[in-house]
Amino acid sequence: MALIVQKFGGTSVANLDRIRNVALRVKAEVDQGHQAAVVVSAMAGTTNQLVEWAREIGPLHDAREYDTIVATGEQVTVGLLSIALQNIGIDARSWLGWQMPLKTDEIHGAARIMDIDTALMRERLASGQVAVVAGFQGLAPDGRITTLGRGGSDTSAVALAAALEADRCDIYTDVDGVYTTDPRICPKAHKLDSVTFEEMLEMASLGAKVLQTRSVAMAMRHNVNLQVRSSFSDAPGTFVVDEDSIVEQEKISGIAYSPDEAKITIQGLPDQPGIAAGVFGQLADQHVNVDMIVQSASTDAKKTDITFSLGRVDMEKAVGIIEKNKEKLGFSGIDSTQNVTKISVVGMAMRSQPGVAKTMFETLAEKGINLQVISTSEIKISVLISSEYTELAVRSLHTAFGLDED
Amino acid sequence: MALIVQKFGGTSVANLDRIRNVALRVKAEVDQGHQAAVVVSAMAGTTNQLVEWAREIGPLHDAREYDTIVATGEQVTVGLLSIALQNIGIDARSWLGWQMPLKTDEIHGAARIMDIDTALMRERLASGQVAVVAGFQGLAPDGRITTLGRGGSDTSAVALAAALEADRCDIYTDVDGVYTTDPRICPKAHKLDSVTFEEMLEMASLGAKVLQTRSVAMAMRHNVNLQVRSSFSDAPGTFVVDEDSIVEQEKISGIAYSPDEAKITIQGLPDQPGIAAGVFGQLADQHVNVDMIVQSASTDAKKTDITFSLGRVDMEKAVGIIEKNKEKLGFSGIDSTQNVTKISVVGMAMRSQPGVAKTMFETLAEKGINLQVISTSEIKISVLISSEYTELAVRSLHTAFGLDED
Repeated sequence: MALIVQKFGGTSVANLDRIRNVALRVKAEVDQGHQAAVVVSAMAGTTNQLVEWAREIGPLHDAREYDTIVATGEQVTVGLLSIALQNIGIDARSWLGWQMPLKTDEIHGAARIMDIDTALMRERLASGQVAVVAGFQGLAPDGRITTLGRGGSDTSAVALAAALEADRCDIYTDVDGVYTTDPRICPKAHKLDSVTFEEMLEMASLGAKVLQTRSVAMAMRHNVNLQVRSSFSDAPGTFVVDEDSIVEQEKISGIAYSPDEAKITIQGLPDQPGIAAGVFGQLADQHVNVDMIVQSASTDAKKTDITFSLGRVDMEKAVGIIEKNKEKLGFSGIDSTQNVTKISVVGMAMRSQPGVAKTMFETLAEKGINLQVISTSEIKISVLISSEYTELAVRSLHTAFGLDED
Repeated sequence: MALIVQKFGGTSVANLDRIRNVALRVKAEVDQGHQAAVVVSAMAGTTNQLVEWAREIGPLHDAREYDTIVATGEQVTVGLLSIALQNIGIDARSWLGWQMPLKTDEIHGAARIMDIDTALMRERLASGQVAVVAGFQGLAPDGRITTLGRGGSDTSAVALAAALEADRCDIYTDVDGVYTTDPRICPKAHKLDSVTFEEMLEMASLGAKVLQTRSVAMAMRHNVNLQVRSSFSDAPGTFVVDEDSIVEQEKISGIAYSPDEAKITIQGLPDQPGIAAGVFGQLADQHVNVDMIVQSASTDAKKTDITFSLGRVDMEKAVGIIEKNKEKLGFSGIDSTQNVTKISVVGMAMRSQPGVAKTMFETLAEKGINLQVISTSEIKISVLISSEYTELAVRSLHTAFGLDED
């Protein structure tokens, strides 16, 4: 007998039929003698409608009231799923964030989980009752409802699995696992049986949409046994595991790409100590996150150019900040573009195989793809390329690293 | 400076524009220096949708989960109204049933209010903050959400007014007050400036849909100063007041009618003591509420007939119960019809004017309307008539009692 946390996203509970389907998946675990805690999101579309109302009635709305409104989506789903479970003979009850309680800090709209009181829930689970838990929501110290930010139900599920010391945390979604790359642009992509937390973390933050970065980091910290699998098929999914659980890997795990990038180049900066700190200090103060940075010699020997990538949404803001400081920074020109994509090769294997960077750069060079910025970490290499080469680059790298399905 | 409880029903908060309109009505009180606690229902239609989902997913649903689901309607409205108020410069915060808490018993779906903790809310009201309170919902002793039954927001408002010792409780609705009778069938009906709690109680339970019976009873018990008024006009409404606040009334207050009636006649019962107890005991055991009863001599001298009225929804159930006990009760036949309407004349004036019954019976007799069952109390006389005479009876009595508007 095991204790299993199951998490179902908005598309998995989008209507009553799908909620009944979820109930059957929960029953399958119960029938095997397992204890089950089920975390659910709001029915797909509901949260968007609630957010839209809140925005329309007051653009600068009180985040506490916003949270009160949007938390109702999950409240409806837990009630409906509990009834659906009871209807097929499974004892079940719903748990709202404030009922456990799942305690958070007071940062409404993007709250962090501080503690989950699971004493009563454990008792009920032990008695055979299924816990149906509202994802995405918690209770602030002052007794108001908080929400964890979009996609927060993944984080709720992992935090609950950690608090309950669950044997497994299954994240049900509309894909059947983690793929070597996006199957929509690379038909030879295949599902991975397992990836390490570190790899998943890189892939999540590099554009793979399967899991929220935050939930992976939390699972890694608490060593939660995570599985990503499909709500709509019985195929086994992808296990996200501790590095020690995986035998030495020979291949890299996947190719990620992120189209939501932009690139800014500042030309002709004085080549002197402290100039990079000047540029990036200003941006950090205004909450602009910069990703990859490269500094290169300018045509004028006493000058230097700095190129960096950042999220597409922040580009205009960043350009504005830099131009406002033109006199102080002393640069000659600024150039920006959204026509860039970040392509990343991710894998623990990289640590034991020094040739990965060489293979990546050669493969892209053969196709005539210019690398605008390069950045590496222990288990990933990312490059910024012109957007029109995205599909070509992903497919070529997928083949070059031996990931094509037989 | 006064403390005012305002209650807005579902049609008053049916969309964002109407919620903004409600915010302006609240602001009007705040601008006059008053403290305001605002009780709101769910947006019109929302509760029906939620109830429908709960029914569809499980016809025999768990009432605790049902309450969890349907309570979300009010949760959305309090958030939206709080934001709308803040947007026009009014400090406001939402209060859910469990946040005050408004404590109820554990009868889910039809909970009774036990106690409201208003300590923190009083502090906030005193500091000038408007309290936006979710109607219809409370907290059971075991920490689950309860609801008070349909129309329960009226009761929430009156209970809150009592707990806060409010100076006034204004029930905003889609009519501008309590009328002498239904203006849709009697164009000469006019709005009453005031009615007593007792009259309002009779009118509410006799079919006038303005206020929930339960909320009137609670207002009477706690002597809450109640006003029924329109959300859509500035006209003064109808005050529901203590008997002592009204000078001796000369006229009766109104004509009520209830079309949701049925009539059952049991023929040829043995005319012996205990036979009525036998019939009505069985019905009471099965939770069938009987209203008016008349017992009359049968054609056979040793036999008797019993005729009674009851709610239309219970008719089939009642006939079934009686027929199942046919042998034990020893009657010869049973007759039932839904083609009946209850017409009532209500007014404190009745106590000082003995001629009311005579006027009523003569008026109806002149129009050729047969009285099938009669029932009286200190301040009302009700008769059961054939449904096709409903409008004629109401209009004739309205004229006969001098209620027609000039």
